[in-house]
Formats: sequence, structure tokens, C-alpha cells
Amino acid sequence: MSRIGVIGATGYVGSEILAILSRTNNEITVITSERVAGTTLGSELSQFVGSTLGDIPLTAYDASVIAAECDVVFIALGHTQAMAVASDLHGKVDLIVDTSADFRLGDPDLYESVYETPHTAKGLLAEAVYGLPELFRSELAGSDLVASPGCYPTASILGLYPAIKAGLAGNGIVIDAKSGVSGAGRVPSDTTHYGSVNENIMAYKVGEHRHQPEIELYLERGVVFVPHLVPMDRGILVTAYISGIDASGGLEAQNIYYEAYNDEPFVHVLPSGTLPTTKSVRGTNHCHIGVTYLAASSTLVVVSAIDNLGKGAAGQAVQAMNIALGIDETSGLGSVGINP
Amino acid sequence: MSRIGVIGATGYVGSEILAILSRTNNEITVITSERVAGTTLGSELSQFVGSTLGDIPLTAYDASVIAAECDVVFIALGHTQAMAVASDLHGKVDLIVDTSADFRLGDPDLYESVYETPHTAKGLLAEAVYGLPELFRSELAGSDLVASPGCYPTASILGLYPAIKAGLAGNGIVIDAKSGVSGAGRVPSDTTHYGSVNENIMAYKVGEHRHQPEIELYLERGVVFVPHLVPMDRGILVTAYISGIDASGGLEAQNIYYEAYNDEPFVHVLPSGTLPTTKSVRGTNHCHIGVTYLAASSTLVVVSAIDNLGKGAAGQAVQAMNIALGIDETSGLGSVGINP
Amino acid sequence: MSRIGVIGATGYVGSEILAILSRTNNEITVITSERVAGTTLGSELSQFVGSTLGDIPLTAYDASVIAAECDVVFIALGHTQAMAVASDLHGKVDLIVDTSADFRLGDPDLYESVYETPHTAKGLLAEAVYGLPELFRSELAGSDLVASPGCYPTASILGLYPAIKAGLAGNGIVIDAKSGVSGAGRVPSDTTHYGSVNENIMAYKVGEHRHQPEIELYLERGVVFVPHLVPMDRGILVTAYISGIDASGGLEAQNIYYEAYNDEPFVHVLPSGTLPTTKSVRGTNHCHIGVTYLAASSTLVVVSAIDNLGKGAAGQAVQAMNIALGIDETSGLGSVGINP
Amino acid sequence: MSRIGVIGATGYVGSEILAILSRTNNEITVITSERVAGTTLGSELSQFVGSTLGDIPLTAYDASVIAAECDVVFIALGHTQAMAVASDLHGKVDLIVDTSADFRLGDPDLYESVYETPHTAKGLLAEAVYGLPELFRSELAGSDLVASPGCYPTASILGLYPAIKAGLAGNGIVIDAKSGVSGAGRVPSDTTHYGSVNENIMAYKVGEHRHQPEIELYLERGVVFVPHLVPMDRGILVTAYISGIDASGGLEAQNIYYEAYNDEPFVHVLPSGTLPTTKSVRGTNHCHIGVTYLAASSTLVVVSAIDNLGKGAAGQAVQAMNIALGIDETSGLGSVGINP
Repeated sequence: MSRIGVIGATGYVGSEILAILSRTNNEITVITSERVAGTTLGSELSQFVGSTLGDIPLTAYDASVIAAECDVVFIALGHTQAMAVASDLHGKVDLIVDTSADFRLGDPDLYESVYETPHTAKGLLAEAVYGLPELFRSELAGSDLVASPGCYPTASILGLYPAIKAGLAGNGIVIDAKSGVSGAGRVPSDTTHYGSVNENIMAYKVGEHRHQPEIELYLERGVVFVPHLVPMDRGILVTAYISGIDASGGLEAQNIYYEAYNDEPFVHVLPSGTLPTTKSVRGTNHCHIGVTYLAASSTLVVVSAIDNLGKGAAGQAVQAMNIALGIDETSGLGSVGINP
Repeated sequence: MSRIGVIGATGYVGSEILAILSRTNNEITVITSERVAGTTLGSELSQFVGSTLGDIPLTAYDASVIAAECDVVFIALGHTQAMAVASDLHGKVDLIVDTSADFRLGDPDLYESVYETPHTAKGLLAEAVYGLPELFRSELAGSDLVASPGCYPTASILGLYPAIKAGLAGNGIVIDAKSGVSGAGRVPSDTTHYGSVNENIMAYKVGEHRHQPEIELYLERGVVFVPHLVPMDRGILVTAYISGIDASGGLEAQNIYYEAYNDEPFVHVLPSGTLPTTKSVRGTNHCHIGVTYLAASSTLVVVSAIDNLGKGAAGQAVQAMNIALGIDETSGLGSVGINP
Repeated sequence: MSRIGVIGATGYVGSEILAILSRTNNEITVITSERVAGTTLGSELSQFVGSTLGDIPLTAYDASVIAAECDVVFIALGHTQAMAVASDLHGKVDLIVDTSADFRLGDPDLYESVYETPHTAKGLLAEAVYGLPELFRSELAGSDLVASPGCYPTASILGLYPAIKAGLAGNGIVIDAKSGVSGAGRVPSDTTHYGSVNENIMAYKVGEHRHQPEIELYLERGVVFVPHLVPMDRGILVTAYISGIDASGGLEAQNIYYEAYNDEPFVHVLPSGTLPTTKSVRGTNHCHIGVTYLAASSTLVVVSAIDNLGKGAAGQAVQAMNIALGIDETSGLGSVGINP
Repeated sequence: MSRIGVIGATGYVGSEILAILSRTNNEITVITSERVAGTTLGSELSQFVGSTLGDIPLTAYDASVIAAECDVVFIALGHTQAMAVASDLHGKVDLIVDTSADFRLGDPDLYESVYETPHTAKGLLAEAVYGLPELFRSELAGSDLVASPGCYPTASILGLYPAIKAGLAGNGIVIDAKSGVSGAGRVPSDTTHYGSVNENIMAYKVGEHRHQPEIELYLERGVVFVPHLVPMDRGILVTAYISGIDASGGLEAQNIYYEAYNDEPFVHVLPSGTLPTTKSVRGTNHCHIGVTYLAASSTLVVVSAIDNLGKGAAGQAVQAMNIALGIDETSGLGSVGINP
């Protein structure tokens, strides 16, 4: 049992972390929100009415209080805000799990080029572990600063990594990604207005999304990445196309994926001919993957599905915490998807 | 820990019961589906892929197997099917929780008039306890046959009972109920076709819905009941209007509701001026209630919200099981709503 | 053929007026938007790309330009803004159709009490005709200032007026109204955020909505009015309950409604036993009405459905223009609903 | 003005054709439905209540009646049914526009291989003109049998044809297509159940969809084609990736597209940096196209959006009729999209 703080508790990611932690034995000691400090979690977010967490006061951020009262801190703020908080708290708590982009890219130059802002915690950047357990489980064990991956990179990397590692890298990768609206956060905008989203699908930031360099960094490959906005609350479906895969590679693919994820508690390769859906993983930390080889076009099509707030954000952050602390990796995360 | 069977495991209610039970220590020993016997839960319902429940085989119904392997049985079949199964199993297992209408109405004549079919288990009907814990908690303790309430009655009765019990019954009750589509079940039909539901709202069965007599039976009052179909998966919002409430009654109403549900783990009366939403209780066993008195029209407006598959069906059935077995009433049911 | 201006052309109501007018022979001469003046309609609203209207420039409001170039002006601004513009333009153009609340309530004291702001065009207020053709067709003919009704009042008054006029007024009226999100306008807010609306239904402003006095004024009856927000773009469904209707009145109701609307081009009473849906009238100026008498509770249930942007706003405004100008009342409005 | 018949009038495509024709001067003389013959259009499809078309009787199919009463016939039946009807009527009416797959593929062997059924009207197959005006406008003029294209092929071919024709064919094409649910038709199924579609996105028939050979036939190129089902009624968004395009080609692309569609009334190339959305074209016959060149990966990304029931089916069928008859190509089709 740990004493846990959540910085930025009322955003979609912060509140989802709290919802997950409500199913564990950990103690929530500090939750912060600059916007509504002074209220309680339940008065601000109605899904906590009736939960024991509902009465926890939302406070303004205070590093000394957090240092005194927390063993583990989740940072659920925007980039640049997160690195400031991490700098404050590093060394004063046992573990920081940051869900922003601030510590994901390893190289400060890459960060500054992608996010167009100086990195002010370069020392920490070097220490942070990228919190994708399927690639960095051993590094996560015992770490004190986790850079939790973005939602698009999680679905993309989990979908493509086994093929690339096995040498089925072909000669070009297209990632066509479809996301529910919660990926855009809780702040109202033209983009998230119901009238803009409902009964609509659109591509955006073609070849310009900030998650593309993160995907390329961990796949060690250039990719074409096009995100789309889909009229649903949650879920990411990535349809990835690897061209230039010959028939022998194509026939092996299903087994390569089975073997890659055989021991993973949260990544599940579906039987050949079966395809994932986002609704199958809604509200969970699971990732479902389906593999199809198209001989006529020498193309391997890999479809992966996650809940962008689950395995794509909050669930993955808790999974990383569990690993870092050396406790049961699935603690709080064993739920069955909500369907319908 | 009990050995549990679910009869009709692949419908919306049966699978939701299993999802809830996956968060408890109980053992699922038998799950049945006539339609897809021979497969597994995970191959039929993709939300169970990755859960330990996913590998459980779906079998055809066999009373002797169930009697041998189950302590508790949930029946998640349609009416008339359920009473046959209950007759088979009663006395051979410790507890039956039936989620159909077969044992809800107490009086076989009323049942036969409403459901236009003979009741073939009248002896059991007399023994069954109506599984609404807020009204019948003491009767549920130790019972061996629970008639779990319908979704509309749950939202309606919880919303109206405190006022009626306190004498704020006025001179007429209108219940305008709005339901998500999962209340219509998993079988495809014109009514549940996406193109019929999406971007649409409609009233149906005005004054003719079979849940109206169930509501009237337990409120001991005639009501006007009009259900509506809303384009969402889950949730029931009941807006109930009690006319003829004088100002003194109106001013007391908030406190009457606070007191009525003060000790209830799953019914939460919101502060004056706050209104419930279905999304606040989605995926949970909670019921939220908001009370407004309109002095100009001497009308008390009570709005109640539940998840029709949670407190309106599967959650309530598990809550009733917990009470009947004498274990922690909230076991498996403590979750925070999924929002967004 | 008229030269037409639309003030506030990029909001939901303004752009819907333009979409309707694109199906007529009228000439659009001026369209204004303070927010995006200098662009074109098509660059701001993508549904106009490919329409001849798409190239029309959006300009800042200039009364002298409008007076010079327009015969008819639609005002699609918020209340208080509208009365200022109407004062500017009255007498300088042939016809003003205002879609705001500024000229709907007749009595300035009532306006000031409901909208909590001074009315600065009281002289015009006395001249304005309430633009509900089914009640005020003769007054609309030749008028030069139309106060186009609100969306909730349109559905409510059309649903209830025949009963009240025929003396079926009973002893109490409950109006339970359900609206799509576009009724809240195009400006982003917490209320209109996709994550707040999707998979959710809620009541709001119980007994406090500003449309209630407008309904009561034209029905000449007090009512209980509770609006709800439904996860869909468009549509209002009103379920109205008139209590205290005896059997003889109840049996007459269907015919009363048939007769009331027999000659109306846009109001259609459905056969007994048939109920309206919002999707049936989506994208149109139609209103569908279904009548059910519940003898057991002496209650008449009237369900009415409109498109809140059609008959509830833009369609009705164009219908009123047609009548005021003495041209074919259905011009531009004959479309079949978009379904699915 | 023509006398028009619609065979299969109550399906999504048939009823959309009627909705479009209601905005023209043509006379609807015969509408058929085997399922509900004997009723009227308005009693079967509520969106026609209040339209003059609502009273038209639905009849059983009778070739002699149609031959006597129709100049033009739209066939909105499934494949195999359509070729039987076309054989019946060819030569007896002036024009047949078939919206099924039966006459799209030119070569009977290809048809039989794709649809796994014999082609029983091979003579007609050779005469049919593929009804995509942007490619076959001159062939359509005066033709008497039009094979109206599928929805996916329309969006895909319009999106890709200019690049291929200009030689920007690169070395591989991926078509990632996203469709609303109405593409699956009006018959209820597990796939179209609200609970399966809502809050979900999924790929299906990866590399196996019957529209892929149709796309490849008219593009004269092999493609990777993966369709997806999106939770919305209408709309197809195609994101097409052409790899192996060098910088000089990439820089020319925008102009190539502008020139290709400069004179087209229904295809609109958006300014560089602007991307289409399905909601922008909802309820219309328009196609919007956005072009982006990604130099880093030598990939041209073309996004195209249509309404699958508009330009993807009914709108296109009417456009083809207009051309075949030599009347204004845009007749009945000039509408602005319904948004929101």
C-alpha cells in the first residue's frame, strides 16, 4: 500500500487514474486542481459521487505537502507544466509517473524541436524510463521517474514492434489511427464541440502530429502517421500497413505476434481472421491485436485497439507504477471491458 | 466464496453479471447459452478476451450439472423461460436470483394479465422476494429466490418511494422515463438498428409498458408511465412529477430524501439545485437522485438516474445475492463510473 | 424574389436559414459575422463548399449597407443584440424576422423580468407579430417585424394548443421536453463538450427555463416545464401530459387534433397508435404529433416532434417570411427529412 | 419531366433517391416493395409524412405496369435481384439506373469470381455504362443502362484518379476507408445493432471486400483496401496513401487535383492545408478532397469525403440520370449539407 498523489486530478487522465486506484488498497492522500481547488472530487466530477474518493478535497499544488504526504505521485498535467512539477518532487517522493510528453523523448533536442519549447529538466530526462512495460519492463522495475507513453504511440508501437523486431519491416509503414474524442482532453473547444464531432469523421495533422516522432523513436523507423477523430468517447484503433513483406514472412506473422505477447497480461493477439474493436477494450488496460497478411499486395495489416484513457494513459501509468514498486502488475487493472 | 452459475450468459444482463463477478472472489462454475454452447465466453464476447473468465466454456443448460456445481444461480433469460429453470433448480441450489419478470409481481393473476401467459410456478412466486434492497433488505437476507426488479421500476420506485412513504403523494404522478438502447436486449430488430436509434428520440408503449404494473404494485399508486428510447448504450433517467404538493411539503422534500437514503450504499441524493445524469452512474450500481420543488405549480419534480444494466439489472442482482448470502453488500460493486 | 440579408450568419440558426434560402430564388445580398468578417461563408462553414453561397463574403454589420441592399433581414443574434439591430433597420427594410427572444413576449415588463435586462425597443415590441403561423397566420400577412418563436415553445404550443382551444385543458399540464444539442448554440462550453453530452441524458433548469413564460403566454396556461439534453445534433421531442381529461374528452382528442391541423402544410397529426420521432422530421420544417388518451389515469398524452433548427428556428423563420411577403408559404421548405 | 419508377423503394438507397426526386419536377409513378406492398411510402417511412410523396402506394413489382408507366427506372435491390429486373425492363423504358453491383464490373468472369454467382444478363453487362460522371460523362449521355458505382469505389476513385492519371502512381497504394453504418443497409443484424456500432470502431473484411476489385478495375491498379465501420449514420472518409512520390511530383499534386476537378459541379478540392470531413457533405452529392504531400516519407496522402447515400449511391444515381437524359446535371442535387 502506498500513499498516492495525483497532480491535475480533474482532467480526463487524472480522474481515470483515480477511478482505477479506487479498486486498489492504496491510499489517495493528495489530489490537486488549480481550477477548482477548495471543492471535493465528488462535487466536481459526478462519477465519484457515492465513492469513498468523492469526499477527498481538491487542493492547490503544494510541493512540500506532497513531499510529506505521498510516496507516489502521478502527474496529469500538460507538457511544460509537468517537467516543473517533476523537478520539484524528484527525490522527495519514491516514484513519479508523468503522463505528459515531457520525459518521453529522451533527447532534449528532439523534445525542443517537436514541442517548440525549452526543456528545463534535462537531467531528469536522462533518468526517465519510457513506461511501456512490453518493451521496458526490466528498466521500469525500481525506477523513480516514469514517462508514460502517449495514446497513439502505445497502440502503434504495440501493433508494430513484433514485426519490426522479427525483421518483417518491409519497405514502408503507414499508420492510420482513429481516436475517440477524449484524447483531446476536457477543455471545451471548436474541435470537441458535440456538433463538430457527432456524425463526423475527419483526418487531422497529417504527418504533423507530435506523437509521430515518439512512435518513430521507439520503433526506430520512419512512418507515415495520420490520426483521425471518431465520434466516440474512448478508444484508439490503429490500422498499420507494412508493405514489402514476402509470403514467407507473411505466413509467419501470426506466430511472431503470438510469441511476442504470449506472456503479457494486457496484450492479446486474436486468432487469425479475427479483428479487434475498440469497444472490446473500453474501460480496460487491454490491447487487442489482429494480424492479416495480404499476399496479393505483399502487405501485412496489423490492427490494434486500446482504450486511449486506459492502456493509452491512466491504465498504463498504473501498470508502470505497479512494476516500478514491485507489486502485482495487474493490481487495479483486471477489469472486463464495459460492453455495450 | 460461492460457486456461481449464470443461465443465459451471453445476453446483456448475463454478461454484465459476469463482468461484475470477475471483480469478486466467487468462482464461476457454469455458464450457459443455448445459442453458442460449445464455444467459450471470450470467443463469443470480446470484452472477456484477456480476462480469466474468457476461457470458461459456454454449455447447454443441464439442471443436474448446475445442481452439482453451483451454490448460486443467476437466471438471465426471458420471462416464461426463467420460471421453468427456477422450478428445476429451486431447492437444489442455495440461491436463485432471477432477472426476468417471472417472479416480480407476487400475484399470479396480475402476472398472467400483464404477460398474457400462464404462470407455471405459482408456489415459487409466493416465496420470491422482490430484490430491491432499499425496500426489502431484511426480507432478502437468507432468502433462496430473488425476483430482481426491472430497470424502469428500479429508477421509478427509488425516485418516488420516499415521497409517497412520507405522505407527499399529491394527486397524480407522471413518470417520464428515458432509456438507453441496451434495455431492449441484444437481439437485432428494427427498433435496435443503429439507423433507427442514432440521432433520434421517441416515446413508445405510452401507458402500455409491462413495467407500469410493477411500478404501481410497489408504489401502491396508479401512475402515468411513458418510456422513451434515447440514442445511448446505457442509462435510465426518470423524471417524475408529483402534482398537488403544497409548499410545506415541497420545502421538506429534500430532507425527506436525504433521510430516506442516508444509510444506503448505492442511492445518493444530490444537493439541492444539482441534477443527476446517466453518465455519472454509467458502469456502476449507483442511483443518483435530484429533487426540485416548483411552488408555482405545486409540483415536486424528482429526477433519478441509474445504469439500466447496473442498478437496473446486473448490479442489483449481485447486490441482492450479497445480501441474501449475508456477505458485504457492496462486494464487486464499488466501482466508480466510467466517464467520459 | 427578394434581396435578403442574414445578420449573424455563421451561428447554427443563421447558417440554417441560408441553407434553406439556397433552395429558393431569393438573392442573398448581405451576410454578417463580427467574429469572422472578411472571410467567406464557404471558408468558415464547410457545408457551403460547392454551393453558390459559399463565395459570399462575410462582412461586419453595417446598417446603411443593409438598408441599401436588403428587402428582408433575418436577425440570428442573441437577445439584447437583436433589438438593437431591429431598431436600426426597422422602416428601412421591408421585413425583419428576428429569431431571438427580444420581440416574443409582447409585454416589456414580462421581458425584463424573464431576461433580466431592459428592453430598449418597446415601441417595436408592440408591433411585432409572434411568428407561429398556425396561430397567427393572418397577423403575419403583411407584417414588417416577426418575432420568431423559440424551439421549445414551438413544439410545446403546437402540441398543446388544439386541446386547450377545444376545452380539453384538464387540471394540470406537464411538459417534458427533450432537445438535441444544437439548441445550445455553436459556442464551445462544458455543456456542449462531446464528453459531456455523448452517452448521457440530463434534465436542466427545472421550472426555470426562459422558454416557460413564452409557452405560458401563448397557451394562456401555467405549465410545468422540464427540458432535457439528449445526445443528438437536432430535434426536440415534447411529451405533454394533460391530466383531468374525462373519457368523452379523451375519445374526441384525436379528431380535435386532426381538425386543428387539417389544412396546415407543416403540422401532421399521426394516426391513432402512431408516435412521432425526431428523426422523422430532421432537416425539415415539419411537426409530427401523436395523441394518446389514457383512460385509467384520465390523462391525455400528446407527443410532438420538430427539428429545433427547422420548425424550431430557421424553417419557421422562412415560413413566416413567406407569409409576410405573400408568397407560397412552403417555398424552400418542402424537403423530405434526412433519414437515416 | 420524366415518369419515374423506383424498384426497392423502402431501402436506404431507394428512399434517398425518392427524397432527392421530391426536389425535382419529375413525376414518381411507381414505387415497389415486396415486403410492404399495399401500404404507402409515408406509412412505411415516416420521413415522407407531410410530403406529397407520402401518399404514393407501395406496390409489388410488375414489369408490365412499370413498362407502361415509367420512362426511367431506378433499381435499388441487392445484386442478382437487380439483373433480373434489368433484363425484364431493358428496352421497355428509356433508362435504367441500377444501384447494385450487377452491372459495374464489365467482365462477367470478374463478376462471377467476385460475387460467386452466375451473371444472367451478360448481354446487358456489355452495354452498361459505369455511372461515375467524372470519368464517364460522355458515355453516360444518351445511355439506357447505368451501373451506378459503389460507395467505397466512388470515394476511392475520385480521391485517387487524378494522381494516377497524372502519373503520380508511385509504388503502392493503401486505401483506408471509414464508413457510416447506413452502408450496411436497413436489414437488422448483429453488425448493425446499436450496441455493436455505438462507441466503437472496427476494421472488417481486410483485403476481402467486394468493392476492392471495382476500385482496382477503374483505377487500373492493385490496391490495399481496408474498410472500417464508424459510429455514424452516413459518410465515407477515404484516406489514401500513395508511396514513392518524389518531391517534384508531390509539389505538383495540389494543382493536378485542382485542374482535374475544376469544372466538376460536385467534386471540390480544398485549399492546401484544409482537410475534408464527412459532416461537410452530409445529405449532399458533393465530394470534398484534401491533398497533403509528406516529403519525409515520399508519400502523397489524399483524403476524400462523401455521403455514402448521396454521392456514394442515390445522389450519384440521379446525377447519372440527369446526364443520360441530357437535362441539367445538378437538378435536384444542389443542396447544402445538413450541419450540424
